Amino acid sequence: MVFGEAMSGILYGVGLGPGDPDLITLKSSKLISAAQVIAYPSLAGGDSFARAIAADLIKKGTEEIVIDVPMSIEREPAQAAYDVGAAKIEAALLNGNNVVCLCEGDPFFYGSFMYIYARLVDKYPVEVVPGVTSITACAARAGTPLAARNERLTVLPGPLSAKELSIRIQGAESVAIMKVGRHLEKIRVVIEGLGLSAQATYVERASLPDELVCPLIDAPKKAPYFSMIIITKGADPWL
Amino acid sequence: MVFGEAMSGILYGVGLGPGDPDLITLKSSKLISAAQVIAYPSLAGGDSFARAIAADLIKKGTEEIVIDVPMSIEREPAQAAYDVGAAKIEAALLNGNNVVCLCEGDPFFYGSFMYIYARLVDKYPVEVVPGVTSITACAARAGTPLAARNERLTVLPGPLSAKELSIRIQGAESVAIMKVGRHLEKIRVVIEGLGLSAQATYVERASLPDELVCPLIDAPKKAPYFSMIIITKGADPWL
Repeated sequence: MVFGEAMSGILYGVGLGPGDPDLITLKSSKLISAAQVIAYPSLAGGDSFARAIAADLIKKGTEEIVIDVPMSIEREPAQAAYDVGAAKIEAALLNGNNVVCLCEGDPFFYGSFMYIYARLVDKYPVEVVPGVTSITACAARAGTPLAARNERLTVLPGPLSAKELSIRIQGAESVAIMKVGRHLEKIRVVIEGLGLSAQATYVERASLPDELVCPLIDAPKKAPYFSMIIITKGADPWL
Repeated sequence: MVFGEAMSGILYGVGLGPGDPDLITLKSSKLISAAQVIAYPSLAGGDSFARAIAADLIKKGTEEIVIDVPMSIEREPAQAAYDVGAAKIEAALLNGNNVVCLCEGDPFFYGSFMYIYARLVDKYPVEVVPGVTSITACAARAGTPLAARNERLTVLPGPLSAKELSIRIQGAESVAIMKVGRHLEKIRVVIEGLGLSAQATYVERASLPDELVCPLIDAPKKAPYFSMIIITKGADPWL
């Protein structure tokens, strides 16, 4: 790591957990409260979920850098937005300010922080503060232990093809399928085909006030982006 | 869930994160500070890592239930210890006390809490509070994003056979191998055989003062139980 300026600030990427502000760590909490500058992504000009989770910790007068990520299947527009966001963060760091970048869940677990990280890690000191991921939050709410002893856990994104999902589900004792959203029906068919419906739990917006937890067979027809299916095949906690 | 007594206490299984007390969540922190009774495992009469992480939060006068888990390859002695521990916790719950069970990392992610959970969940109210897992803590310290977009993450325990490890590593973009310990040499050979040594990072005791992070090729000959290898094959954060 080469630092651009001896007096530059530190960039913190802080995990906020799945949504309940009480699932923020003490470390992230302290960093947010003490921040001179915070940064966070906002999707297509809408509200920022990350900012909402941290809202009660943000002090008045804190400078806020909004990284406005456009909705697009193409990758270039989002990457251009990260270029702009990283440049704003860099300016703050060069002014000697620490910048706390707010990340839903964990910064390195399906998070957008890695795009900011990649742009700045070679030039400025960066610290990543891990957070509670949605997979263990969903497991906690579903009452299903994820993995024990020598079990294998596989994390799969919902957009994968039915064939790919099927292959990967078969080789693990526990499976967490993230970002279910509009892929729910496809995933449901795959799990039914594998005879695993009875072991599958559906969790929507874990830890939030409008959370929903139910057996997959009772899941609604439409799932939001923040939804997950957990399949546990094996663990017998008595043995 | 059927509750044994209208006035019985609540059992909380609280995740403490990977070791740095600052990586405890606000929720776990509050529950521990307010606890009338805490419970935690201790391996073979030794110190409890879970208790050590939470030490500064435990108030004087808090009743402590130690679940003394014997060292044994056989499963029966440990299960007998969980029987004894669960009975002590049950007695406290029946007295109307809440019991906060301290869990390293996350209670449902390779944790022993599931054995207590299985014994009591049908009889008493239980709440599981998720924690930061060692996998995202290790990724944060190693500076390696774990998964992005449609990437698949596989979590594998080190004790698996070389053949099994090899098969499972090949099908995922990112792999976290837990509980490396005395399996280090076997795992090293597998990763070398797959041509992935250059993408493998070794992390020992993440977030603790004596943490060690290095490329796998520079890892020490002996690894402690709390060590992990992270392999990231794919993610190009610029695209």
